[in-house]
Amino acid sequence: MNYRMVLNTLAVVLRIEAALLVLPACVSLIYGEYGGAWSFALTVVIILAASLVSLLFKPKSKVIYAREGFVIVALSWALMSAFGALPFCISGEIPSYTDAFFETVSGFTTTGASILTDVEALSHGMAFWRSFTHWVGGMGVLVFVLMIMPLAGDRSIHIMRAEVPGPTKSKLMPKLGHSAAILYVMYIALTVVEVIFLLCGGMPLFDSIVHAFGTAGTGGFSIKNTSIAYYDSAYIDAVITVFMALFGINFGVFFLIITGRIKEALRSDELRWYIGIILAAITVVTADILPMYGGDLLKALRFSSFQVSSIITTTGYVTANYDTWPMLSKTVLVLLMFIGACAGSTGGGMKVSRVMIYLRRAAHGIRGLVSPRETHAVTLDGKVLSERTLKTVDLYLIAYVFALSVSVLLVSIDNFDFESTVTSVIACFNNVGPGLGICGATGNFAAFSDFSKYVLSADMLLGRLELFPMLMLFSVRVWKRGF
Amino acid sequence: MNYRMVLNTLAVVLRIEAALLVLPACVSLIYGEYGGAWSFALTVVIILAASLVSLLFKPKSKVIYAREGFVIVALSWALMSAFGALPFCISGEIPSYTDAFFETVSGFTTTGASILTDVEALSHGMAFWRSFTHWVGGMGVLVFVLMIMPLAGDRSIHIMRAEVPGPTKSKLMPKLGHSAAILYVMYIALTVVEVIFLLCGGMPLFDSIVHAFGTAGTGGFSIKNTSIAYYDSAYIDAVITVFMALFGINFGVFFLIITGRIKEALRSDELRWYIGIILAAITVVTADILPMYGGDLLKALRFSSFQVSSIITTTGYVTANYDTWPMLSKTVLVLLMFIGACAGSTGGGMKVSRVMIYLRRAAHGIRGLVSPRETHAVTLDGKVLSERTLKTVDLYLIAYVFALSVSVLLVSIDNFDFESTVTSVIACFNNVGPGLGICGATGNFAAFSDFSKYVLSADMLLGRLELFPMLMLFSVRVWKRGF
Repeated sequence: MNYRMVLNTLAVVLRIEAALLVLPACVSLIYGEYGGAWSFALTVVIILAASLVSLLFKPKSKVIYAREGFVIVALSWALMSAFGALPFCISGEIPSYTDAFFETVSGFTTTGASILTDVEALSHGMAFWRSFTHWVGGMGVLVFVLMIMPLAGDRSIHIMRAEVPGPTKSKLMPKLGHSAAILYVMYIALTVVEVIFLLCGGMPLFDSIVHAFGTAGTGGFSIKNTSIAYYDSAYIDAVITVFMALFGINFGVFFLIITGRIKEALRSDELRWYIGIILAAITVVTADILPMYGGDLLKALRFSSFQVSSIITTTGYVTANYDTWPMLSKTVLVLLMFIGACAGSTGGGMKVSRVMIYLRRAAHGIRGLVSPRETHAVTLDGKVLSERTLKTVDLYLIAYVFALSVSVLLVSIDNFDFESTVTSVIACFNNVGPGLGICGATGNFAAFSDFSKYVLSADMLLGRLELFPMLMLFSVRVWKRGF
Repeated sequence: MNYRMVLNTLAVVLRIEAALLVLPACVSLIYGEYGGAWSFALTVVIILAASLVSLLFKPKSKVIYAREGFVIVALSWALMSAFGALPFCISGEIPSYTDAFFETVSGFTTTGASILTDVEALSHGMAFWRSFTHWVGGMGVLVFVLMIMPLAGDRSIHIMRAEVPGPTKSKLMPKLGHSAAILYVMYIALTVVEVIFLLCGGMPLFDSIVHAFGTAGTGGFSIKNTSIAYYDSAYIDAVITVFMALFGINFGVFFLIITGRIKEALRSDELRWYIGIILAAITVVTADILPMYGGDLLKALRFSSFQVSSIITTTGYVTANYDTWPMLSKTVLVLLMFIGACAGSTGGGMKVSRVMIYLRRAAHGIRGLVSPRETHAVTLDGKVLSERTLKTVDLYLIAYVFALSVSVLLVSIDNFDFESTVTSVIACFNNVGPGLGICGATGNFAAFSDFSKYVLSADMLLGRLELFPMLMLFSVRVWKRGF
């Protein structure tokens, strides 16, 4: 383990965070919130001071392997959250550090689970920073997906199409930095377009920006206690429904569309399944909740499509109290939490492509039992997946089930009801945000104990980083090589 | 597909069921329940008549492959339940055929989930038949495990130690029939010993026999509305706690003990984990419920050890209303439902050995990411598991998660609360019996719709037959070859 290199990379990450904090500080100043501005400034000083430690340990070698890559990623997210929580504490707007840490992890992991009982009491600067973490987290996920996951031998699922369009074609983008730049341009452009659409619907500029941040990162922090329901506008609901669904798509698909390869984009198995699942879920939920809305089909469709789009993309915005919906609709939403968005998007969950692979494997497994002598290859986009990839996907499921079970066990110590206990973990693990029961559509995570808040914070990080970088931190082997 | 051979084998299975029905008919006669005796007699006639169909289609060839084996197993359990439900209907003691079918599937699969709101209203003959299905089902599982599962390439987990003690030793039992006979002798002997122990505790003979049936098959049907709590005896609780735990052990271990190879028996990884999990669960639950029992450690220990033993072995007997226990204890019990008993026992669930393999795979997977160049083999009892075995275990988990999710979705149409909906499926799928909420310790499955009862019946069969034989019935390929 090249500790010195890890330390120096983390120092760079922290300096970037310090730079990012200038933006909310400016927002505070614009709104005349000098206490807030001071909190941000103090945090910047603390972060820069902490990052100076790295100067004492200059790296002897710049070589890093997958091991170091994973450790850097895992610790980056944890450290950014630990320091990013400081402004909330220093300003006193979230007095408990545990709460502030939970809120910041929830922000950077683009989960959107909140401990705030009154979001509207936040100052503009803090509200901006809170939503800005979603947007920054979303960017981080895209780069993470692009740069780190290929090291795990999981190439065929996680890598961006924009980077490797296929073995027969020359790589479009010779360098990672170049690909990342293209991703960022698309990400920023889509965010700006959403802000413009929201402004056209009469949403104030500040509200439009923070809600676009929440949509882009598929996070779901709102600045209104009743989330998007506050605006009570079919137009705004429609805009956000569509943009949430867009941000749940693999960014490689957008790249193909921009470069005119629309046919190739539409051939994506995952995209077609994603659209299919969304349409099926909307149909079931609309039919199920129709009687609740007095048979008003348009109203039922508006609420169901918003909630389906919000949950499958793991955003977590709310326009209706789905806790009062029939059990069938709630079950559909919980299953969507597990499925999640497309790989290579800012969304969380298991990812549609993994679910596809699992389904195909199960079908092939049964066929294999019927005709043991035939060979059965599992394909994605017409390409055969390697045994190595399948094994990685299997390991993911195993680790997922265990981590989920242990988390539910730990959170159950709080002695809440079954529904709240189980769905709080599901919602955090899949980076959705709201669950059912006390952490449901109109609830929040304030009532959970500090212990549970740390467990759920760990779940958010585990889910966001696809489990293995975080789990590796618990392996003795990672840490045993020289300094 | 050798349809004729399948048909003829099923006919033999049905004739065996007809023979088994003579026993409850005798019980009815002993207690002077002539209506009940008549119902059994009529059912025997119907079954024998149905089995005659096979005479029209003499098999052209006696050769069967894995495919036929799976289909025979799956249809045997379904048909035995379909016909075994008739006495309940004919006698009018369970008027609805759906209910009778659910109850009989629950019996044969050794689940113990009941639709009866007043068990004590059953006649002696019917109560005997109901519990007898547990005992017969338990025998069936042992043979199934012994004969069918090796065909699925899952040798290393499912096969009995008694049959294949290891590659370096000569097979102890050259023939399957011989192994089955040894299993049956052990099964019958253990049941008789339990009956004697229960009689010593003052339990009436009839009660002792039916409760021993329920223990041996790890089923859990009681003839009292309050289950074992009715007897309110620490001695009886202790006896049943111990025997439930014994019937959850791989029968191969008993074989080794009987033949004096105790050291070898104790070397079993699965046995040690099984005991470790039970002790850990008892410790946590006892500490958690202690305040509820006024700090009476012995009382808390008595109830917690009974319930832990009952749930991990997937028996489902009840001595305390665990629905009123704190959430931590309930979560422990729900996780035990998933883990289940040892492979090669009459218990259900995922099986301790599978859980062990999953945990080891996850640990090895993480190590593999840290040091990609080392090879990491997953072992069980010191032997390296083949890639083929690991793949089968992975496929099981994938199929398990999907079947569970679809079932929860279908049962949620009934619009019960989250806890009841989810745990009803978990309890049936893992062949436990009672869940939480309306189907909890003091509840039953009467309130579910007919549709849900069929879904849950399918779940019981899926769980009992380790998924694949049942899932194969849905594959077109199974059915396409000639008659």
